[in-house]
Amino acid sequence: MKLAWIADPAKPLNPEMEARAWARQGQLTKPPGALGQLEGLAVRLAALQGVERPSVDRVTIAIFAADHGVAAENVSAFPQAVTGEMVKNFARGGAAISVLARTLDTRLEVVNLGTVNDPGELPNVVRNFIAPMTANFAVEPAMSQEQLALALGAGRDSAQRAIESGAQMYIGGEMGIANTTAAAALGCALLGLAPEVLAGPGTGLDHAGVTHKTGVLRRTLKLHAAHFDDPLECLRRVGGFELAALTGACLTCAQRGLPVLVDGFISTAAALAAVRIAPRSADWMIYAHGSAEPGHARVLDALHARPLLNLGMRLGEGSGAAVALPLLRLACVLHNGMATFAEAAVSEKIQPPGEA
Amino acid sequence: MKLAWIADPAKPLNPEMEARAWARQGQLTKPPGALGQLEGLAVRLAALQGVERPSVDRVTIAIFAADHGVAAENVSAFPQAVTGEMVKNFARGGAAISVLARTLDTRLEVVNLGTVNDPGELPNVVRNFIAPMTANFAVEPAMSQEQLALALGAGRDSAQRAIESGAQMYIGGEMGIANTTAAAALGCALLGLAPEVLAGPGTGLDHAGVTHKTGVLRRTLKLHAAHFDDPLECLRRVGGFELAALTGACLTCAQRGLPVLVDGFISTAAALAAVRIAPRSADWMIYAHGSAEPGHARVLDALHARPLLNLGMRLGEGSGAAVALPLLRLACVLHNGMATFAEAAVSEKIQPPGEA
Repeated sequence: MKLAWIADPAKPLNPEMEARAWARQGQLTKPPGALGQLEGLAVRLAALQGVERPSVDRVTIAIFAADHGVAAENVSAFPQAVTGEMVKNFARGGAAISVLARTLDTRLEVVNLGTVNDPGELPNVVRNFIAPMTANFAVEPAMSQEQLALALGAGRDSAQRAIESGAQMYIGGEMGIANTTAAAALGCALLGLAPEVLAGPGTGLDHAGVTHKTGVLRRTLKLHAAHFDDPLECLRRVGGFELAALTGACLTCAQRGLPVLVDGFISTAAALAAVRIAPRSADWMIYAHGSAEPGHARVLDALHARPLLNLGMRLGEGSGAAVALPLLRLACVLHNGMATFAEAAVSEKIQPPGEA
Repeated sequence: MKLAWIADPAKPLNPEMEARAWARQGQLTKPPGALGQLEGLAVRLAALQGVERPSVDRVTIAIFAADHGVAAENVSAFPQAVTGEMVKNFARGGAAISVLARTLDTRLEVVNLGTVNDPGELPNVVRNFIAPMTANFAVEPAMSQEQLALALGAGRDSAQRAIESGAQMYIGGEMGIANTTAAAALGCALLGLAPEVLAGPGTGLDHAGVTHKTGVLRRTLKLHAAHFDDPLECLRRVGGFELAALTGACLTCAQRGLPVLVDGFISTAAALAAVRIAPRSADWMIYAHGSAEPGHARVLDALHARPLLNLGMRLGEGSGAAVALPLLRLACVLHNGMATFAEAAVSEKIQPPGEA
């Protein structure tokens, strides 16, 4: 296990640039606060990037694909073969995230951590194959210590590649049949929640399917309950390769100073694990959207996160974060490109009588 | 008064293309419904544009600037000179909407309908100068019949220019000191609401300012109450030049078949007037965002509208609609560009036992 890097501290924010960015917002030709959340977003990016005028033009989207042993418990509406089929679809450019990455002119990398239906070497796919799937966590830990280290390291490597490519923001996404079950198990383990709070329909279970999934989660949580005080051990026991990779990517981004735009239910569960491992890493995560998966709101609440979008999306693949990216870009161009009151010779707000 | 055009019917939607677009959504490589509101948006645009694969690449943003006689009642936190100053800022490219229009590669036109501080002829500004401002509707009707016709016609002309330029979507915006007071008066008149329901801080009134504004609205509504069964007469008595122009643009877009992306509180009040004049015009309006101006939610409710964004914006200028435009564009590229299950050879959902 080479996990010493996990303990490296998160990079601190730049309070001077934060103050300068707020001062700039107050001088732009608009009533104070009129751009709503876009103002705070631009200022936060300034504090994270350590510049007065931030930018998220250069973005890496990394999709981690992996299969889950718990699929044997019939917890998904889709067959397990779909994970590998979707890796091919990513490689060919036909998936939602492929279309979004092209349109948004981002760097897209697909990382195959292990799929039952193995597509082999593919163009545009990084092969970090750990095993065809995790073990079924309803009966044993999902990963060995070595597998956990490999998965966390795969995420770290992806974040490092993003940084080397000059990325100004990182989006992690995932694909893995049954991974809402793993994310729910991880969220329940980290937050001490009952399984029915985070169990949802995923890709489309009916009511009976969700009830069955809740039962599988109940067995799982009972089996591993003695280990829930250690977030890394939670990840190893009830996580998945892609969840651990996303956690590793979040931790590395926070250490190296690359803001993360967090996608939906699964990515947020991985971000939660990162925050439990390294609380200050929370500064580096911006939450893109509230998923239709009902448990997402609970995990966001635990992170005190208010997502930018609420469009009822529940696809994963980083798609919700990609859809939110234009909002961050527009927040930056408004912050950087609007005229100030002085530049435009526009009168400022009338001071109420009694104010200086 | 040449207002016969107002009675022309709204263009009907294309149900065949709507059905074909839904069928296409069901074949894309994602669980059904996983793209949330983006799916319905793409389908609605298909029905509106009469094509299976819609597009909103070519967009016109029109900003209508006008001053309001009711500003004499001290209902705004900014001096009236700002309206004309901001027209210059639009022309020079320094305003929020200027930055957004450039970034989003849209056509931007600024229409000056009448400002107290008259910037005169300016490059990139259409001069449709009706009067320096409306009359103070707290003491008399805001407009004459002739002025109302001119303002509605200015909006119609703008929509026609958009159509001639090949626009696939129209965004109307506004700038006018005191126009949240006019929008509140119009909303109360059309919906039979008490003034305190729609009176808000606008660009930044404090509590005492909002109370004073509510009193001005109460006098206004009492003065004109006998005429509220006629939406055109509401617009003439308690509207404004930019409100009437936006209403004229909405009506023309609906008649000619150009979808409208509606901005915030003022634009929504104008859209409400259009819907009261021509109920079927409602089909053509998509609501971009919920404003921080508290009355906006009530007007949206009356229109059964669920806006795409809730970012606490309250700037006007069409800025909230512009910020939402990338969501519509991404909805279209996903709809048009994703692979189908057949194209990608991806397995579809498992049929539950008992289903065909």
